[in-house]
Amino acid sequence: MRALLMGPAVHPFRAGLEKMLSTKWELVETGGAMDDADVVRGLAEADAAIGIAFTKAAPPAPRLRLLQVPGAGYDGIQIPALPAGTSLCNCFEHEPGCSEYAMLAMLEWSIRLAAADADMRRGDWSRSSRFGGAPDGELAGSTVAIVGMGRIGKAVAKRAKAFDMRVLGVNRTVRADEPNVDAMYGLDRLAEAVRGADFVVLGCALTDETRGLVDARVLGAMQPHAVIVNVARGPVIDEAALHAALAGRRIGGAVIDTWWRYPTVPRQATAEWPHRFDLLDNVILSAHIAGWTTGTVQRRTRAMAANLDRLARGEPLDNLIAIGGRT
Amino acid sequence: MRALLMGPAVHPFRAGLEKMLSTKWELVETGGAMDDADVVRGLAEADAAIGIAFTKAAPPAPRLRLLQVPGAGYDGIQIPALPAGTSLCNCFEHEPGCSEYAMLAMLEWSIRLAAADADMRRGDWSRSSRFGGAPDGELAGSTVAIVGMGRIGKAVAKRAKAFDMRVLGVNRTVRADEPNVDAMYGLDRLAEAVRGADFVVLGCALTDETRGLVDARVLGAMQPHAVIVNVARGPVIDEAALHAALAGRRIGGAVIDTWWRYPTVPRQATAEWPHRFDLLDNVILSAHIAGWTTGTVQRRTRAMAANLDRLARGEPLDNLIAIGGRT
Repeated sequence: MRALLMGPAVHPFRAGLEKMLSTKWELVETGGAMDDADVVRGLAEADAAIGIAFTKAAPPAPRLRLLQVPGAGYDGIQIPALPAGTSLCNCFEHEPGCSEYAMLAMLEWSIRLAAADADMRRGDWSRSSRFGGAPDGELAGSTVAIVGMGRIGKAVAKRAKAFDMRVLGVNRTVRADEPNVDAMYGLDRLAEAVRGADFVVLGCALTDETRGLVDARVLGAMQPHAVIVNVARGPVIDEAALHAALAGRRIGGAVIDTWWRYPTVPRQATAEWPHRFDLLDNVILSAHIAGWTTGTVQRRTRAMAANLDRLARGEPLDNLIAIGGRT
Repeated sequence: MRALLMGPAVHPFRAGLEKMLSTKWELVETGGAMDDADVVRGLAEADAAIGIAFTKAAPPAPRLRLLQVPGAGYDGIQIPALPAGTSLCNCFEHEPGCSEYAMLAMLEWSIRLAAADADMRRGDWSRSSRFGGAPDGELAGSTVAIVGMGRIGKAVAKRAKAFDMRVLGVNRTVRADEPNVDAMYGLDRLAEAVRGADFVVLGCALTDETRGLVDARVLGAMQPHAVIVNVARGPVIDEAALHAALAGRRIGGAVIDTWWRYPTVPRQATAEWPHRFDLLDNVILSAHIAGWTTGTVQRRTRAMAANLDRLARGEPLDNLIAIGGRT
């Protein structure tokens, strides 16, 4: 059996997969674009492919039975483009990383450790109480609204509750017995939930329902000191509305890990960004790193190897999202 | 009744105390040094004093019945210097702040959000998994050894456990039923406890028993990647041994919030430091800010106002440490 590892995001899984697979697979590293020559050649013969993008521009893949996404979000996959009989599966396992990032974002916002370190290296002790320095904020007693009570949301809630935060959950389905949550809101009551929050953490999937969910109205309902943390997907927030709210200081700030657009090469002039978040002083920015941890890699490798093994043995696949019908 | 607020560390409590006191007090702000003229004048008449330092150089304080420390550590107070009949009390309430700082220190060490932000503002996306960026560490599944299972240690353990960390507790008294702790060690087994740890968090009081507790032997037992976080008191660590371990990269790093010496003015050339921690790249430094939060200030103000009220009403004082005998 042959599996393609499509694109640089997938190649690092190779060594781990080779170790963890119980069935016999030939693993072939290719580019990630539909028109890459090795993708065209590879899909002609592959039984499985692992990748984050698959579109209607895909070349024929007559033997493809599994398209495995090496992560949770499959917004790069056009489901109508899947060949007939190809199962689309994803995997999760990033909830420890994403929730740790979200807690770090809130803690850093309260304490400003990076600035404290820079101060000390300049010999500036003025934040010490000895010199009447202003005290920092505390997460204890503050309120976080978590949008999306899936795996990430639950993991954030568990950690936030141990910090003695008040936890509001916002979710399409309102479950009364959601653990570690003080109050649940439906998506239609999002503006109401954020009104009482010091922090808003986005951890939902990007779907038709959540695209642009955090718009000017929701941002307008946030308190002037409140901070939004996005470890979901960029387009869950209306980009122009967020930039305007930040630039106009109508909200306290934003920690942005997930983006509206991604560059195709690792260096990109920020001058190309339609909204210059990099010029703001009330944001913390990162390059979609929240879920990308050694633990995530290890758990996802295990999950993907198990799915390839299942395919080889003719067993039912795990985390099946859809089966393609394109002929 | 008259109470002195001795030194700039105490002055910010004034407005809150005036609001929270139920009994009638005149609050007088003075300097913090024993030979400050207003301290000499003030102690001649004060019924109570709030301060972080009191030494044998103290002027006569014939009416002083309460010396209240506005924090937990009273290592600045020479107990034999207390006038006869003066009660020494402290207060706590900084465990949310200190534990939040300790968790931030570990999270920032794993994720390096400050560096991620600097990267993005330069247009550098290379940490993204899209470009094969190296994954970050995770607290989940890692081990923290907490030295001192008092209020701070318990608060760190509770939070670390919610992050699915393995928690080792090190304490003078080994309690079998310590919550949120996987294994307990006596102080004499400290080297053994740190051997298995990815992080070592110090949250103990500075006493004869803990001074220099973390010495070259204990540092030598730490793993090469392990990181020590000090929110206790500087001298719990042997300063020269720590600097040598860091400079020689025999441990992974240190997050230092509490110091061996403090400046008397808020600006101090780091060139004066006997050990130049500021020149190392494997440390994060801050100016004793961990416990200094708005929540700590509010809770301590309430606790100190309650003690002044108790004194005025002749009721037993809270958090009594010692009663002076100096005549």
